[in-house]
Amino acid sequence: MAADSPIERTTWSRMDPDRAPDVEPGRQAQAEAQAHAMYATDRASQGLGIEISDVAPGRATATMSVTGSMVNGHGTCHGGYLFLLADSAFAFACNTHGPLAVAAGADVVFVAAAFEGDRLVAEAVERVVQGRSGVYDVTVRRDRVVVAEFRGRSRTLPRSAGPG
Amino acid sequence: MAADSPIERTTWSRMDPDRAPDVEPGRQAQAEAQAHAMYATDRASQGLGIEISDVAPGRATATMSVTGSMVNGHGTCHGGYLFLLADSAFAFACNTHGPLAVAAGADVVFVAAAFEGDRLVAEAVERVVQGRSGVYDVTVRRDRVVVAEFRGRSRTLPRSAGPG
Amino acid sequence: MAADSPIERTTWSRMDPDRAPDVEPGRQAQAEAQAHAMYATDRASQGLGIEISDVAPGRATATMSVTGSMVNGHGTCHGGYLFLLADSAFAFACNTHGPLAVAAGADVVFVAAAFEGDRLVAEAVERVVQGRSGVYDVTVRRDRVVVAEFRGRSRTLPRSAGPG
Amino acid sequence: MAADSPIERTTWSRMDPDRAPDVEPGRQAQAEAQAHAMYATDRASQGLGIEISDVAPGRATATMSVTGSMVNGHGTCHGGYLFLLADSAFAFACNTHGPLAVAAGADVVFVAAAFEGDRLVAEAVERVVQGRSGVYDVTVRRDRVVVAEFRGRSRTLPRSAGPG
Repeated sequence: MAADSPIERTTWSRMDPDRAPDVEPGRQAQAEAQAHAMYATDRASQGLGIEISDVAPGRATATMSVTGSMVNGHGTCHGGYLFLLADSAFAFACNTHGPLAVAAGADVVFVAAAFEGDRLVAEAVERVVQGRSGVYDVTVRRDRVVVAEFRGRSRTLPRSAGPG
Repeated sequence: MAADSPIERTTWSRMDPDRAPDVEPGRQAQAEAQAHAMYATDRASQGLGIEISDVAPGRATATMSVTGSMVNGHGTCHGGYLFLLADSAFAFACNTHGPLAVAAGADVVFVAAAFEGDRLVAEAVERVVQGRSGVYDVTVRRDRVVVAEFRGRSRTLPRSAGPG
Repeated sequence: MAADSPIERTTWSRMDPDRAPDVEPGRQAQAEAQAHAMYATDRASQGLGIEISDVAPGRATATMSVTGSMVNGHGTCHGGYLFLLADSAFAFACNTHGPLAVAAGADVVFVAAAFEGDRLVAEAVERVVQGRSGVYDVTVRRDRVVVAEFRGRSRTLPRSAGPG
Repeated sequence: MAADSPIERTTWSRMDPDRAPDVEPGRQAQAEAQAHAMYATDRASQGLGIEISDVAPGRATATMSVTGSMVNGHGTCHGGYLFLLADSAFAFACNTHGPLAVAAGADVVFVAAAFEGDRLVAEAVERVVQGRSGVYDVTVRRDRVVVAEFRGRSRTLPRSAGPG
């Protein structure tokens, strides 16, 4: 991954101690390593300028600016791009534990509109993992305003992630 | 709208008679007019090459090809783009009746992966409208394979659409 | 199962030919046999007077009358009982194929209120099955009025069902 | 309401200070008053022995024991009863602010099975309220085990709840 890629610039020490208070160092290192590996080949997130930060076991934050090409026929950010941003945060969060996890589905509630030029921040937090299934909540905000509430359902695959 | 825009090329007569058997001509004309107007300013759908077709009251189909820039870190089409395609079909379908409708939320189940080069077709069908709320089902397919099942929840806005 | 149990009284020939046009006899017999076996031990559905009918591969209908003990603090049928009825129809529909299937989750949209004395009919129809996952749509109606739209997500268990 | 009704027995002081740290006394009193009024006529919750506790603005907890009549054909608690318990907690939580609120819909993920004799606790917490729409998360547990994750979508009605 290039030295100037968004995730490379992530300042892990920025993480609020309340949000990841006592993560074991080995698990934190694994979470960051998986995020780096995933981001390196994630052309979709890269292509939209999505930055991944604050990765920790079960957590990840994705940030994106709304461009003119994301606006729909109502003059607001297309809900698909709001979902996509949340889905990226979810994908990074559910892949912090080791086994390869994929999205089985998700529900989204659109709470407020977003507009061209808005900087959107999507914070994904693990809610529960049971066996191979997980539930992750992602809140998308512009400043303090909640734009969307997303809940993702993950499944880990039987085999561990590839040869890396 | 330019003569070569995707929706302009739509062959409405292609519609399967079983799928829109007895639509009143005035309602069909309104549905098509609303789709044309929405598409003209929908930079998100245009920018991704999404074509809208088979518009009828409560129905619309959206088609998109998966490009390399839609691929995620797992080597498959990012679920956000699958959602976005379904969400576009939903937006056109729920705006065929007159009043301006917006997405209140949606649920998606990811059934199978899609890959670069796949041509995806999302068919939106109205399930129920009650007062200002509606439910729309969208199935996303590549050939005969179901890739995703999406269910959108719409709300019509108090004022009718349009500059009038 | 007693001769007067609701499912015993089901008139399979009532099934609309459009709804189960060309089911192979063996698969239809299996679907009915599984429904009988499930119903025999389903104290929840029995206790609420839920009747199961129109069972076919991927389909089942559940019917229930709203009693006074199902009414909530708003004077309407508690949404939990609307969900429960839909969930029963879903459970019977997704267990018509052989392998034991359980509910992984569901989404429900409450479309209209139901009241004490209403007779509710929930029709479950399979939408897609892929590998061990399935999606089933259930519409709950009182007369012609749609009360709720439910979408269930099933998972079949690794071992086949049965007492063996 | 009878002096021995479950909500009458609620010990409000049991509330964990972290969970309702700085609620204004007037809002807390209103929340409790609304819960009392709703519970008094909620025959569904009463009939199942559901107890409501820990009511605060945007919050409520519902507790229920799984009886033999709640068991389905798989020998586990019917998912409909898990949903119903969560839905009750949600209904009380979203009606703590004054305006009458109803459930517009909900999604549930079934995480683990529950069995006859289990004592289930459903904690509802408000996630966001925007205009007339709200999102509430409810976790259902038996002891420390998460049984279900529920997310409810509320709508407040135009008129405030009347004495009727």
